[in-house]
Amino acid sequence: MNDFVRIVEVGPRDGLQNEKQLIATADKIELINRLSATGLRSIEATSFVSPKWVPQLADAADVFTGIQRRPGVSYPVLVPNEQGYERALAVGVEEVAVFTAASEQFNLKNTNAGIDESMRRFAPILTRAQADGIKVRGYVSTVLGCPYQGEVPVAEVVRVARQLHAMGCYEVSLGDTIGAGTPRKAAAMLRAVAAAVPMAALAVHFHDTYGQALANIASCLEEGVRVVDAAVAGTGGCPYARGASGNVASEDVVYMLHGMGMVTGVDLPALAATGRWLSERLGRDTGSKTGKALAAT
Amino acid sequence: MNDFVRIVEVGPRDGLQNEKQLIATADKIELINRLSATGLRSIEATSFVSPKWVPQLADAADVFTGIQRRPGVSYPVLVPNEQGYERALAVGVEEVAVFTAASEQFNLKNTNAGIDESMRRFAPILTRAQADGIKVRGYVSTVLGCPYQGEVPVAEVVRVARQLHAMGCYEVSLGDTIGAGTPRKAAAMLRAVAAAVPMAALAVHFHDTYGQALANIASCLEEGVRVVDAAVAGTGGCPYARGASGNVASEDVVYMLHGMGMVTGVDLPALAATGRWLSERLGRDTGSKTGKALAAT
Repeated sequence: MNDFVRIVEVGPRDGLQNEKQLIATADKIELINRLSATGLRSIEATSFVSPKWVPQLADAADVFTGIQRRPGVSYPVLVPNEQGYERALAVGVEEVAVFTAASEQFNLKNTNAGIDESMRRFAPILTRAQADGIKVRGYVSTVLGCPYQGEVPVAEVVRVARQLHAMGCYEVSLGDTIGAGTPRKAAAMLRAVAAAVPMAALAVHFHDTYGQALANIASCLEEGVRVVDAAVAGTGGCPYARGASGNVASEDVVYMLHGMGMVTGVDLPALAATGRWLSERLGRDTGSKTGKALAAT
Repeated sequence: MNDFVRIVEVGPRDGLQNEKQLIATADKIELINRLSATGLRSIEATSFVSPKWVPQLADAADVFTGIQRRPGVSYPVLVPNEQGYERALAVGVEEVAVFTAASEQFNLKNTNAGIDESMRRFAPILTRAQADGIKVRGYVSTVLGCPYQGEVPVAEVVRVARQLHAMGCYEVSLGDTIGAGTPRKAAAMLRAVAAAVPMAALAVHFHDTYGQALANIASCLEEGVRVVDAAVAGTGGCPYARGASGNVASEDVVYMLHGMGMVTGVDLPALAATGRWLSERLGRDTGSKTGKALAAT
């Protein structure tokens, strides 16, 4: 089995969008430039959502045009709709990401649209992206539980993931938005999806709300997944459990992968230093235990 | 495969002994009494080491005589030598624990004795314990790395574990003292030991220095281990990486086990409340992500 694992660094977008404190545009740019120097191949740079929804990311265009794009590194951005797609295209984005939930209730509350309606909204983005030569990543959220409806049937996760892939997403990231999953459930969900979408087109995305993220990633790696989303310094928090932990920390993921004999191309000390730098900007401890341990030794 | 997992709660001993701040004897007693009410079956109460070495646990006898022992719950205590064993016996202890490292360097620095010398010191304790009807648990530390010698050969872990079991330890706990292990290495180490000591006589003991503990536990559970050491609120820190994380948090372990369909008999909300109570006494945030999430929802 291939032992290269691609980390999709989502800190600048998924991480920061859930941090209360506003971060200066220049700091976001510096964060992405620092991350680019660590050997990461994919760095989600920002989101072209309406500033009304996510004030933290209102400077999306300035961030994207401000960063130094490194050859061989992808800088996807989130786009919620065609207007977002157009704003992204205008500043030279080469990869976008669309998102929907596997939970109807979550999607309704989060985007004012049911899942099928979300898919209809994405369809023109995917058509245009193909014509424009833009890669599209798809996110499925709430794959292991929903803050509103509780259990989310695996069949729904499979249906949504299959549809995103069929519509043209080159990769579908399966997100445990509320961090409720545990290793066996995570592996079973991934197995079910991989029966409908090739494993090589799947990524996993865990939040560490209950401390389970790394264990879930390990069990999904044993199932064969080779793309893992993570956020440096474990930024993010959880809007559904205030005060709880955020995204799984990239440093801890990379430490584990290297210990498991896998290859990431990431310079772990440089990544950990970037996490500590970011934490200083945020005025708090790093959320990465590896980041803390490497600073202490 | 049996789905009951026994948690050995080591917070009152392994956790507190590495906390800088002195805890009042009455608080230690209250901690153990609260833990006793959560459904835990094993609670390591204290250590009869010399107060010179571990001032935090100088009140071992007062703690042990102060707690309300609940029928069906074991309250092992650590004993470093025969004097410790005698002090423990004098206050009515029914289970003791002895410890050695799998790393010769670590054992020399930590106890001023090589591994074989440690074993010779334990021999009379095990002989007396058998005559006294006292159960003995054995700890092997540094099973996945040593702060002094680095790599620790798995063969050494196997040798030490086999010898402790052969000397009469009913259970041998395999400890990743510096938290350096990752899932595949942890599983391979456990598999090797389980070829020499029955799996039913083995426990795993992970520290969360690099955030790997829960992933390691999950992989060891899949190998068949059914006893897991953990400390409520993730107390402990790491004397070899100051500022780093401590023992794996019991709350996070129990959350995972229940999510994996395993049975612990532990009331998770009560355990999490105990962890938050302890954290208040220690004047800091709980080290349990599950503890935080349950408080927030």
